[in-house]
Amino acid sequence: MASMITQESCNKSFGGYQKVFSHYSSVLECRMKFAIYLPPQAEDGKCPLLYYLSGLTCTEQNFIQKAGAQRFASQHGFIVVAADTSPRGCNIPGEDEKWNVGTGASLYVDATQEPWCKHYRMYSYIVSELPAIIEQNFPVLPDRSSIFGHSMGGHGALLCALLNPGKYKSVSAFAPVCNSVKCAPFQEALRLYLGSDVHEQNKWNATELAKKYDGPPLNILIDQGMEDEFLQDLHPEEFTRACAESRISVVLNMREGYDHGYYFISSFIEHHFEYHAKFLK
Amino acid sequence: MASMITQESCNKSFGGYQKVFSHYSSVLECRMKFAIYLPPQAEDGKCPLLYYLSGLTCTEQNFIQKAGAQRFASQHGFIVVAADTSPRGCNIPGEDEKWNVGTGASLYVDATQEPWCKHYRMYSYIVSELPAIIEQNFPVLPDRSSIFGHSMGGHGALLCALLNPGKYKSVSAFAPVCNSVKCAPFQEALRLYLGSDVHEQNKWNATELAKKYDGPPLNILIDQGMEDEFLQDLHPEEFTRACAESRISVVLNMREGYDHGYYFISSFIEHHFEYHAKFLK
Repeated sequence: MASMITQESCNKSFGGYQKVFSHYSSVLECRMKFAIYLPPQAEDGKCPLLYYLSGLTCTEQNFIQKAGAQRFASQHGFIVVAADTSPRGCNIPGEDEKWNVGTGASLYVDATQEPWCKHYRMYSYIVSELPAIIEQNFPVLPDRSSIFGHSMGGHGALLCALLNPGKYKSVSAFAPVCNSVKCAPFQEALRLYLGSDVHEQNKWNATELAKKYDGPPLNILIDQGMEDEFLQDLHPEEFTRACAESRISVVLNMREGYDHGYYFISSFIEHHFEYHAKFLK
Repeated sequence: MASMITQESCNKSFGGYQKVFSHYSSVLECRMKFAIYLPPQAEDGKCPLLYYLSGLTCTEQNFIQKAGAQRFASQHGFIVVAADTSPRGCNIPGEDEKWNVGTGASLYVDATQEPWCKHYRMYSYIVSELPAIIEQNFPVLPDRSSIFGHSMGGHGALLCALLNPGKYKSVSAFAPVCNSVKCAPFQEALRLYLGSDVHEQNKWNATELAKKYDGPPLNILIDQGMEDEFLQDLHPEEFTRACAESRISVVLNMREGYDHGYYFISSFIEHHFEYHAKFLK
């Protein structure tokens, strides 16, 4: 069962190490990369674990280069895993033609439709295969993990938490896609991966999942820029309303003047680490 | 005399704005870009100014995306200008053929040799034209500026400070090229820009300039990674010895385990802002 992982890069950062590994994913049936930050505290013992899911078109690199997370991972003693955003190089017709379908655009769902269903199972990869690999290879406290993400990855983080009550201690998101079926850039991929039935698509809709949530207490933090160029596709207010109905604790910070990118994320990353620390420590 | 500058991008960051502008440079005879971070304090008054010079192959983007400087520029109330690393698009034969000659590789000198001498005058651009543009267009305190940089840009920052006694309140560098004529990746460009005479090349050699420095007190901070893959080309110890002979105050921090890249820079950027704050405030 032990997965072979291969170190691709290693850079000292804030007293710890920012590393990238590759491995063969049996869930996705292709090779994948993930980034992992190991804080200085990981040399002496086990650490809490924070997963980060990136947005459309990203790889495992965007977050580790631009978010400024290592400073706070080092301070709090968190291992941070940044996943890739889709399978790659699967030779599916059209997988590299559009920025919002195929490569870089998994939507973090498990596809049910041919030809996508063989490889595009990022949800299962993120909640099952990747955690197993991390637990086998790194000094993590497996019962102390949380998840966060940006845009499509914010949607992914909300899905993972809402579909797995109790698995993550907390969840946070920067500018998440909160109602996937209403997000115009998602619609073609949703149809291709899941078919045209809205009922099937809504199985992966954070707002619909929040309405039906019936698990242990769940804590959600969302930061949203008010000058976000994608704001009309994100629907954070609708999501927070659904959470209130299901007694999910959610904080939505609307941030004046901020847009959708990493200058926004880096401005509030400290705040997200402080939030997760309340639940992970 | 007023230079027209054109805003290319604007992103809110840590309560201020990270912007990029383009303009025509009459010194370089081509269009150039620079990045400028305006902290929240710049809305109400004038701010100290910190120039950053990047390394080989970089543009104005690397530093603003990867160094995490905006957090500390906002805290300290510093305007931070990140310059590009060379003229661009000058149609000089061979300007785009090598990573260490031409585009992205100005070495921050004023070339004397054809065909480079018409455009490759980055030293004059950095110490004269760019400051004039910044002072005309932004709320800076012109008598309170400092300079720092990385690798080739660390060399550039040291040159600018050593050749202009009193102009900069302080200077710092990450992994600077301290003895340009001993730096293998510099040698072809030095010959092309300045000719083969070592005496001419040494006019742009920080170690040689430090030996002859005879200005007001100068304060220099250097951080150097001990796992830096270019360490044999940098010669920081030689530079600090030359500074000691000239009674220049220099602190050299050798950092165990760190390499040459932005993971190293971001780990110590806070420290460089604190250093400059002692002289700029």
